[in-house]
Amino acid sequence: MNEKIVIALGGNALGNDPESQKKALKHTSKSIVNLIEQGKKVIISHGNGPQVGMIKLAMDIASKVDTTVPEMPFPECGAMSQGYIGYHLQNAIQNELRRRNLDIPVSTIVTQVMVDQKDKSFDNPTKPVGRFYSKEEAKKLIEKGFHVKEDAGRGYRRVVPSPKPIDIVEKETIHLLSESGAIVIAGGGGGIPVIKENNDLVGVSAVIDKDFTSAKLAEVTEADTLIILTAVEKVAINFGKPTQKWLDSMNIEKAKEYIDNNEFAQGSMLPKVEAAIEFVKSKPGRGALITSLEKAAEGLKGNTGTWIFEK
Amino acid sequence: MNEKIVIALGGNALGNDPESQKKALKHTSKSIVNLIEQGKKVIISHGNGPQVGMIKLAMDIASKVDTTVPEMPFPECGAMSQGYIGYHLQNAIQNELRRRNLDIPVSTIVTQVMVDQKDKSFDNPTKPVGRFYSKEEAKKLIEKGFHVKEDAGRGYRRVVPSPKPIDIVEKETIHLLSESGAIVIAGGGGGIPVIKENNDLVGVSAVIDKDFTSAKLAEVTEADTLIILTAVEKVAINFGKPTQKWLDSMNIEKAKEYIDNNEFAQGSMLPKVEAAIEFVKSKPGRGALITSLEKAAEGLKGNTGTWIFEK
Repeated sequence: MNEKIVIALGGNALGNDPESQKKALKHTSKSIVNLIEQGKKVIISHGNGPQVGMIKLAMDIASKVDTTVPEMPFPECGAMSQGYIGYHLQNAIQNELRRRNLDIPVSTIVTQVMVDQKDKSFDNPTKPVGRFYSKEEAKKLIEKGFHVKEDAGRGYRRVVPSPKPIDIVEKETIHLLSESGAIVIAGGGGGIPVIKENNDLVGVSAVIDKDFTSAKLAEVTEADTLIILTAVEKVAINFGKPTQKWLDSMNIEKAKEYIDNNEFAQGSMLPKVEAAIEFVKSKPGRGALITSLEKAAEGLKGNTGTWIFEK
Repeated sequence: MNEKIVIALGGNALGNDPESQKKALKHTSKSIVNLIEQGKKVIISHGNGPQVGMIKLAMDIASKVDTTVPEMPFPECGAMSQGYIGYHLQNAIQNELRRRNLDIPVSTIVTQVMVDQKDKSFDNPTKPVGRFYSKEEAKKLIEKGFHVKEDAGRGYRRVVPSPKPIDIVEKETIHLLSESGAIVIAGGGGGIPVIKENNDLVGVSAVIDKDFTSAKLAEVTEADTLIILTAVEKVAINFGKPTQKWLDSMNIEKAKEYIDNNEFAQGSMLPKVEAAIEFVKSKPGRGALITSLEKAAEGLKGNTGTWIFEK
């Protein structure tokens, strides 16, 4: 009954500018509170791609034309996006709870996520962030030590690494709140990436995949189930082909076989299945569910979605 | 021994751009951890004037030149500033704790603060926010329903109300974490102001004085002591005159007498003394301390600062 679930919300559940984000989250909150009403302990993580991109771009533009606006590094922009999205998300859930006369605390924890300084992605940054630069500007950035790549003929952009999460810095707080029955929003945008430098935790310009952070969050908070929400109800193999087949479930062995056969698209379904595997293999009895927001409550009852189990 | 204190950090403890903020908070964290080492439960609130001003300005500038950047309302900018400052502050305290081999969780709670829609300040907004506008732009803003005022010959600026806090929306979470021994950062920038509209909590463009929010936070979390940090060690009467006198303590009656005599400057010492009174009168036995960051630990031992008691 008191099952604990971590829900990873995709960008499609969030909207973009403030007004459409509020509207999207009003809708999203209904589905989330449906899960809460089943008596589950709920921790929510979310993406921040469009939002942190917009914040970084705005800071970049403004700092160029107004000397009172400082250059804002990427970890700080990520922290801003956690405040921005967290506020809208907790407010929307609180209001939906109020509508149903449920008195459950909801709060957002600003979350740092530990990554390994030796993660291979630091040698080969691939994730574009912020605004476009001219060739001359790009040259200056490279001289300053930044990684810059040409972006499909549209100009140059900074690229940052995408390391794997190894720990959640605020895990005790998140765990304690969740155990008390509160709804916790954490790990937004994959978390603010930090490395250990001497004994200090230091923010680094990087983007952690939010599905991997959600899996780590589920692992360290002893969740039973990780729900990764996406645009489709189920995972498919032979996607888009006449032989396309929706999957009800797969075990780790089968999932890895599908991955080896390139069944899942990079940057789309692949990281979701990989994150699901990470969580499921972390302890016996854990399960992961990939489905859509609308089908999540039914999926959790075992009626739809794609379940990933150990065996 | 297990006294609970709420510390209200002023802007001078924060710095401004990301680099100087990190440096300032490294210093600030030493004093805060000195208090924690005395065995106190600590909740920290902070101002956000320069930071939210910078974020609002950047969003305003960028949205004017790039159509992909939306107009960002004030509550959302406040939420961003809570993420930004909260991340730096929790990181700095965590690192200072690590240096002293103390294992105490630290986290930032994105905080909404309830205000009364009928608060008189809504009829007379006075707090300038965001960028400067030309006379023509100002006219358009006024037509859209915004309040705009001429600012000392430098152009026109939007002004927002500064209502009094009546409740902390996330109080249960903050209380629970603090009781568990965790260090909690909450109510940043006076909190994100929300009003009740029908039964929903809805963000409003306003700025709540951070000292009043700190007093409310201390009240609802059952703190024993509110420490309001400022640039001076003690409160003075006849400030700047030959008869200037530093105060060791004052009771509510005396404090109100000084206020009536205009001893304390508006927007500076006055709100601090008023917030201290609010907290002290909320329950017998509560005390407030106004002092500097450097003297806080000594002040808490009763050796310096200005104490405000009920009688």
